[in-house]
Amino acid sequence: MNLKLYVNSEFSSPYAMSVFVTLKEKGIPFDLEVLDLDAGQHREAAYRDLALNGRIPALVHGDFVLTESSAITEYLEEVFPAPEYKAVYPRASQQRARAREIQAWLRSDLMPIREERSTLTVFHEPATQPLSPEARAAADKLVRAADKLVQGANLFGDWTIADTDLAMMLQRLVHSGDDVPAKLKDYANAQWQREPIQQWLALVEKAKLAAR
Amino acid sequence: MNLKLYVNSEFSSPYAMSVFVTLKEKGIPFDLEVLDLDAGQHREAAYRDLALNGRIPALVHGDFVLTESSAITEYLEEVFPAPEYKAVYPRASQQRARAREIQAWLRSDLMPIREERSTLTVFHEPATQPLSPEARAAADKLVRAADKLVQGANLFGDWTIADTDLAMMLQRLVHSGDDVPAKLKDYANAQWQREPIQQWLALVEKAKLAAR
Ligand SMILES: [Ca+2]
Ligand SMILES: [Ca+2]
Ligand SMILES: [Ca+2]
Ligand SMILES: [Ca+2]
Repeated sequence: MNLKLYVNSEFSSPYAMSVFVTLKEKGIPFDLEVLDLDAGQHREAAYRDLALNGRIPALVHGDFVLTESSAITEYLEEVFPAPEYKAVYPRASQQRARAREIQAWLRSDLMPIREERSTLTVFHEPATQPLSPEARAAADKLVRAADKLVQGANLFGDWTIADTDLAMMLQRLVHSGDDVPAKLKDYANAQWQREPIQQWLALVEKAKLAAR
Repeated sequence: MNLKLYVNSEFSSPYAMSVFVTLKEKGIPFDLEVLDLDAGQHREAAYRDLALNGRIPALVHGDFVLTESSAITEYLEEVFPAPEYKAVYPRASQQRARAREIQAWLRSDLMPIREERSTLTVFHEPATQPLSPEARAAADKLVRAADKLVQGANLFGDWTIADTDLAMMLQRLVHSGDDVPAKLKDYANAQWQREPIQQWLALVEKAKLAAR
């Protein structure tokens, strides 16, 4: 099928993970292409010419190159659709809209959480500093929204990619011991046990060893 | 149809404009609900309970409430589909993926442009300070991508909402006299002449008068 996924060599991008999980949940074979962002490989002309936004992740599908993780997961859903492949978005319009809302929100808001609880605090070492007042306010906002959204093992009955994205954001708090209601901690931890996330975490560990 | 669009009272949100334009291009009747963000109306309990992310824009459609402009424009495309209503996304998967990529990118990157060339510099007074080196680098990145994307009056043959969003980002530079190649300036200015944007600009002017 000639699919390639560009990720960063530390496997620290939550957006690369979201696309990786989508490909794994759908069972689509693909090659990983690893860029060393510290060495500036994403700023080299070859990648800049390939990827519209110059960022990772990027998906290469034949001659077509696409960036922005939510655009990529939507594209994969259309090109590898259910029922032949597992659906990664809800089927009903209002639920699908809610999944898109969650994805867009988690990518454009809650910046103090993303800064003070980077994915390195999830994948490597928990944070040792308490949340700043700004980050605590963002955490309260996240918890308030998630508490409304989470009413079972998955957001929409069957698992969707919005579950992975929401669990990732919650894990930023859970991993550093920040206050998160038990219902949401349980939800995030159960999502974390899914095989594709465990496969991603194994790649993170391998990258850690390689970096020593 | 019972549709309401929440916008801010200064009509300065490019994301509210994107939804407004979608509704107008599709010819869907709706009510405007105006929140005074300076007075903190979006932080009041009533709005916080209504809108998942507590931000504008929000769309109310019967009992369903949705935030995040790109999720809203996708929802409107599904619920008010072509050919009965004008399409606001391309039909072909790879073009639709590209439109989503552009929307997601413009909402999650290029922060120095969004900060130094806020929409107030488009809707009210141009900026008087030159771009910082960081913003100039972001502007160069925008221009490089837009130069690849723009090959005619619209990105994908027929107009789509990605044209409005890209034109908005380019206008941040155009309005303050920052360097933008003529092809892109012409594209952005032609997009600006579309009736729904002109209607939005009239609302901006009305809000300015009311604020005096
Ligand atoms: Ca490879
Ligand atoms: Ca490194
Ligand atoms: Ca009204
Ligand atoms: Ca004001």
